[in-house]
Amino acid sequence: MDIAFVLYDRFTALDLVGPYEALAAHPEVTPHFVAATRDVVRCDAGLPVQPTATFAELTRPDIVVVPGGSGWRPALDNTAVISWLAAVHPRTTWTTSVCTGSLLLAKAGILAGRRATTHWTLRETLAALGAEVATERVVFDEKVVTAAGVSAGIDMGLSLAAEMWGRETGEFIQLVMEYDPQPPMDCGSPEKADPAVVAAVRERVAAA
Amino acid sequence: MDIAFVLYDRFTALDLVGPYEALAAHPEVTPHFVAATRDVVRCDAGLPVQPTATFAELTRPDIVVVPGGSGWRPALDNTAVISWLAAVHPRTTWTTSVCTGSLLLAKAGILAGRRATTHWTLRETLAALGAEVATERVVFDEKVVTAAGVSAGIDMGLSLAAEMWGRETGEFIQLVMEYDPQPPMDCGSPEKADPAVVAAVRERVAAA
Repeated sequence: MDIAFVLYDRFTALDLVGPYEALAAHPEVTPHFVAATRDVVRCDAGLPVQPTATFAELTRPDIVVVPGGSGWRPALDNTAVISWLAAVHPRTTWTTSVCTGSLLLAKAGILAGRRATTHWTLRETLAALGAEVATERVVFDEKVVTAAGVSAGIDMGLSLAAEMWGRETGEFIQLVMEYDPQPPMDCGSPEKADPAVVAAVRERVAAA
Repeated sequence: MDIAFVLYDRFTALDLVGPYEALAAHPEVTPHFVAATRDVVRCDAGLPVQPTATFAELTRPDIVVVPGGSGWRPALDNTAVISWLAAVHPRTTWTTSVCTGSLLLAKAGILAGRRATTHWTLRETLAALGAEVATERVVFDEKVVTAAGVSAGIDMGLSLAAEMWGRETGEFIQLVMEYDPQPPMDCGSPEKADPAVVAAVRERVAAA
């Protein structure tokens, strides 16, 4: 099972690593880190990742995982990424995204008429690109699975693991990851956070 | 503020990326990905990371983050890593680890008589290396902060962000990360998981 983790300039590391950690260690899986070229790709907070394949080299992935990131806007105009997504999607088993990665799926025509989600600050942008916006943390619409912002990719990866390999394997992976979260504050969604903090995050995203 | 994220062969990506995502985007922070050489380092499930500095080049980090990983056992005998940890620790503001990263801190003499935690399968190993083992998800002992397995690094990173920069900044970062976890199953700790799954994970770790 070939999983393509899609890299582009200024993607968000945790968007990729959440599902990666849940899926990539399974013995059936070969993970690939795919970009336009083999040059190192930098995450939006600086982590440099070395691609293992180019889009031209990997044309039949079984699963595609598209992370979001601060670089989502230029990525929408990055023909190499968008045309590859459109080309490989018809033959995938699962096409997935985390956070603003769904905007790239939408741009590639994959979310037309589909229920999908994204980072909570960019739901209108996702709707404008033709998706039917859902606000759940993980959204399954047939073989297209989208997760909300950043850390939601962990929940998506574990859901997908349980769906593909059975509940017991999913539980095994979750226990290996010791995923029994204890967030230090209770402010991880706009409904729960202080309105001043919600406004500050919206402002930061709009400025970016 | 220079943060050193320590790389060694077969570290676990999420151990590093959890705290990285919580800390590295702050405007005061310069993240460094530090290894024995500048050669690409592979995570235990295959992700290749490009170091940005060698241990010889970064001698005064303000914060050190040591991830765990399947490669923890050879890392204990890796003099480059262990002696660097021992050398830089006296002048850090915070010395931290996630998962089996605490075993490396212990080997470097940093946890003698200190309360610390690790992945739930390796508490006896941590005790044998001289630490006073705690079972909380995130353990502060003065400037030494240790987190439990893999995903606990997210909770540690956010706790540290709130501690250093104030609660409102911590809330801002948690909301940007949309960290309102909804684990698909309730089995992320040995107390909550099915005993058969607990036994299977212990067996896998012992075999590794």
